[in-house]
Amino acid sequence: MQITDVPTPALILDRRVLTRNCVAMAERMRHHNVRLRPHLKTAKSAEIAALATAGQFGGITVSTLAEAHYFVGNGYRDITYAVGIVPAKLDEVAEIQQSGAKITLLTDNLDVVSAASERAEMNNTNFHLLIEIDTGGGRAGLPAESSALIDLGRAIDAAPGLSLEGVLTHAGHSYHCKSETEVRIVAEAERAGITLAARRLRYAGLPCQEISAGSTPTAILGNRFDGVTEMRPGAYVFLDLDQVGIGVCGLEDIAVTVLATVIGHNRQTKRVLIDAGALALSKDLSAGEFLSNVGYGLVCPIDTTRPYAGIYVAETYQEHGLIAASDGEPPYDSFPLGTKLRILPNHACITAAAYSTYHVIDEGVEVTETWGRVNGW
Amino acid sequence: MQITDVPTPALILDRRVLTRNCVAMAERMRHHNVRLRPHLKTAKSAEIAALATAGQFGGITVSTLAEAHYFVGNGYRDITYAVGIVPAKLDEVAEIQQSGAKITLLTDNLDVVSAASERAEMNNTNFHLLIEIDTGGGRAGLPAESSALIDLGRAIDAAPGLSLEGVLTHAGHSYHCKSETEVRIVAEAERAGITLAARRLRYAGLPCQEISAGSTPTAILGNRFDGVTEMRPGAYVFLDLDQVGIGVCGLEDIAVTVLATVIGHNRQTKRVLIDAGALALSKDLSAGEFLSNVGYGLVCPIDTTRPYAGIYVAETYQEHGLIAASDGEPPYDSFPLGTKLRILPNHACITAAAYSTYHVIDEGVEVTETWGRVNGW
Repeated sequence: MQITDVPTPALILDRRVLTRNCVAMAERMRHHNVRLRPHLKTAKSAEIAALATAGQFGGITVSTLAEAHYFVGNGYRDITYAVGIVPAKLDEVAEIQQSGAKITLLTDNLDVVSAASERAEMNNTNFHLLIEIDTGGGRAGLPAESSALIDLGRAIDAAPGLSLEGVLTHAGHSYHCKSETEVRIVAEAERAGITLAARRLRYAGLPCQEISAGSTPTAILGNRFDGVTEMRPGAYVFLDLDQVGIGVCGLEDIAVTVLATVIGHNRQTKRVLIDAGALALSKDLSAGEFLSNVGYGLVCPIDTTRPYAGIYVAETYQEHGLIAASDGEPPYDSFPLGTKLRILPNHACITAAAYSTYHVIDEGVEVTETWGRVNGW
Repeated sequence: MQITDVPTPALILDRRVLTRNCVAMAERMRHHNVRLRPHLKTAKSAEIAALATAGQFGGITVSTLAEAHYFVGNGYRDITYAVGIVPAKLDEVAEIQQSGAKITLLTDNLDVVSAASERAEMNNTNFHLLIEIDTGGGRAGLPAESSALIDLGRAIDAAPGLSLEGVLTHAGHSYHCKSETEVRIVAEAERAGITLAARRLRYAGLPCQEISAGSTPTAILGNRFDGVTEMRPGAYVFLDLDQVGIGVCGLEDIAVTVLATVIGHNRQTKRVLIDAGALALSKDLSAGEFLSNVGYGLVCPIDTTRPYAGIYVAETYQEHGLIAASDGEPPYDSFPLGTKLRILPNHACITAAAYSTYHVIDEGVEVTETWGRVNGW
């Protein structure tokens, strides 16, 4: 099937770019002697997981228990569920672990410990816990220097049915850095913070085998990872306009695009209409923090990810996208009704979540495979 | 199953509110002597379609061909696909029509006509077309007074295999009105524009049986619909914070909420964390155009849609939502870890699209049914 025969909107995945991104990250982590535990919340696909873990130790990261079920079903046995755990989800975790997989969990909260310990006993299992550390992202986690860290470590270590595996952080604020230098500063803060937390636990006589960090910007641009045992980037497999804006990659590194069809011209409002709207592109506007005239995505011809200059999706409705030109009128004649276009997404993780399928291309515009995704919860 | 037992995040649908919204719209349209062709892009569910079409003529509106397939499979035979058609989608339309259903299509573009006529002949079918009219929304459609309208009408009417059914408009700009009065002005412009377009076609000797208009704000607040044959609101079945902001309804009229669990407290950044983030709530911020301190949604206790004063989802990551208080620190003690909350969405159409299932409640907090949805394309 040619790309032009795929019903639109659809998600197109360029395997060559995907593979290049996976190999580059693997080599980078190997060079720095850090294990790569790819975060599969972006890809949610067994085929992509196979590429991302090729030559690695096999550990992965997930953001939902639906992903955990799916990847265990696809043979993965060492999975970190990187969202703070609550006791109500532990019966499901226990069920997933029955297959022999190890699901490592996350907490920063002392209130979890006794309830988790009870659930471990009830389910006749053991829960593996990492303590979440905030190294500046401000989302979740204890500060590396907090006294609560040691209290929590001691409580987990002492609780029957729980094992303290180590510490974990995510430098989410790297997504708002305005320069490569700033990302490098955040990367060093992430490294310094997580290794400090680990040292403090060890000095307190507590186990801390895993020292887990990572975001795509800090994994790609960080200078050193000394003391970190593993990195967990996710968006690097696809990359997107947001990552281009941060300075992490170029447009040619974006592996995933939305295929759309021109469905109209509105000469009154100077817009070209496509059939990819708020659901197909998502309402994510993150690249607008860095780039001007990017809107809901940049518009490319069918056979490349080099966008037309100044042509972007300016507005979205549920199933309509409205393409504008930054300098006035779009060249309607270049986009006759029925034209297929590819849209570079702002944030690949969010855009991809609307699709159940990837249409994979290798060279040119032939779709060689379709791969599934595990969406929802 | 109690609501508290539903794995989170999940979509909760209050059947009493849904039914009330459906009955109110049906009565309103009956009072105005206008047929109701509900737009099912919001609900995407056969069970909800049954409520929305109860006592009506049975026609519905869809936004994707996936919805058309699904609703034909559920017995609907009169379906308007309200997104501008392109010839490449006509073979699929023909296939759906083979079951005996009539799929009415939309265009504002002369270039469609000859290609559609050819496809009709190739598929041995007839395509039913409405001409899209722009009554001020600025998305798609010809101005009611344009000369292109008559040219397009004549071309459709003359083309073998095509039938001109009438005209259609959507006053999408009603979503940006700042007062009820402003919505009523837009509603009258919608009515006046679409009936003018119809009169012009009829004066030119062209058929124009269907005069279709509608958006939820104009359908709820419009004073008169004289000359309009049918209205196509969709969001009214659920309503949402955006509609509250426009002034169309109250908080007690919102039928759909996102169930979430408190997964953490961040006292450094004054946030309560929940497991409903950018995918579970969407990145839609539309109600912020009208309401302050609404963010990605307002936060309610488990058993009501009356939000806590000043408590809202201020930030989202893929699977994390961060709840803030408008006056400083959230009351952590009111939201212990594991607390279940319900979030009122900004834009129900976009939020619901992340879910494959509705958890239906009737009274109190017991889930009495689960209903499916047709997502994707």
